[in-house]
Amino acid sequence: MIKTASVILAHPYKKSFNHAIFDTSVKTLTDLGVHVCAHDLYEESFNPVLTTEELGKQPTKDPLVSKYVQELIESDLLIFIHPNWWGQPPAILAGYVDRVIRPPHAYDFDPNDSSAAPWGKLTEKGALVFNTSNTDAARETGYFHDPLESLWGRCVFGFCGLENYSRRMFRIISESDDAQRKGWLAETAEIIKNFGDYPKK
Amino acid sequence: MIKTASVILAHPYKKSFNHAIFDTSVKTLTDLGVHVCAHDLYEESFNPVLTTEELGKQPTKDPLVSKYVQELIESDLLIFIHPNWWGQPPAILAGYVDRVIRPPHAYDFDPNDSSAAPWGKLTEKGALVFNTSNTDAARETGYFHDPLESLWGRCVFGFCGLENYSRRMFRIISESDDAQRKGWLAETAEIIKNFGDYPKK
Repeated sequence: MIKTASVILAHPYKKSFNHAIFDTSVKTLTDLGVHVCAHDLYEESFNPVLTTEELGKQPTKDPLVSKYVQELIESDLLIFIHPNWWGQPPAILAGYVDRVIRPPHAYDFDPNDSSAAPWGKLTEKGALVFNTSNTDAARETGYFHDPLESLWGRCVFGFCGLENYSRRMFRIISESDDAQRKGWLAETAEIIKNFGDYPKK
Repeated sequence: MIKTASVILAHPYKKSFNHAIFDTSVKTLTDLGVHVCAHDLYEESFNPVLTTEELGKQPTKDPLVSKYVQELIESDLLIFIHPNWWGQPPAILAGYVDRVIRPPHAYDFDPNDSSAAPWGKLTEKGALVFNTSNTDAARETGYFHDPLESLWGRCVFGFCGLENYSRRMFRIISESDDAQRKGWLAETAEIIKNFGDYPKK
């Protein structure tokens, strides 16, 4: 049962299609009876730079990071919404991953065997990623090797033991019209609704 | 002839092995007669968050970003030094890419054909990337699909038309001893020396 969700947005332009996906996601989840922790990282002036003190397992001293961490721990579903910049998220979201998805709550290492694979701690959660792109699918996969799939599917969620994950890339944003965008927002809502069990489903 | 180089470091810990690679790179290039633009992004408190105004081609209003841009344009060689975090650079360096490697100086689009491939403008430069990692090679390539190679080789340099590129990943840092690290620094110097022609070579 998905009772709590973190929805994280990274896009600098308030009228971006990413914002529309964010608004749709929050409304869909709220209508499904979910407690939504929604964060527009730009709006909240999140600082993405991991500190020296955060290199190990020590808790962060940044209250906003602490809040995101607590919500991550409490969330059954994690949703990330961002454009494809260089095959990566915008730096502000790369820094969310650096600072929020940390040990000991997201993963940990065996103190007796430093070469052992990490112990993932997000195994019971689900995750959805919504991306926008101006690169066509053939070039994204054939030339760039779809780096966002590696990042989210394996480097982040796989590393933390989270297997219940799905990603949807909307493209080509720069060539899309209103009707197509409206269809994509409807699809966003459907993907969320079909992802799991909700209080009001 | 490599006369000018930008050397960019991203690591929060001043005694990190990344800092040693940075120092070795700067010294090696200086000894070769190169004008070195060396930047420890953490030390300089670089802000990695791309602004709304920087979404298009408008020049940045951040004087530090302007400085990095001007140096990028003037550099014959670009060197990036960073640890492998989530198959990405630390957010502070992801943001250097977002904010510094921008149109119209690093790439541009055909104003008459929005679907055409970008026009890379870093074609005459060379680039070296030095990484550190605690993941073994088989897991990095087999499971994670070596995302840093996709990022630097194709998503960043390939996108900007820069083909003269080489990357060296030093691993496993957490299990290395002083002798091994000393050898890696000597190798760093050799890689740089052998990369091209220099004023004092």
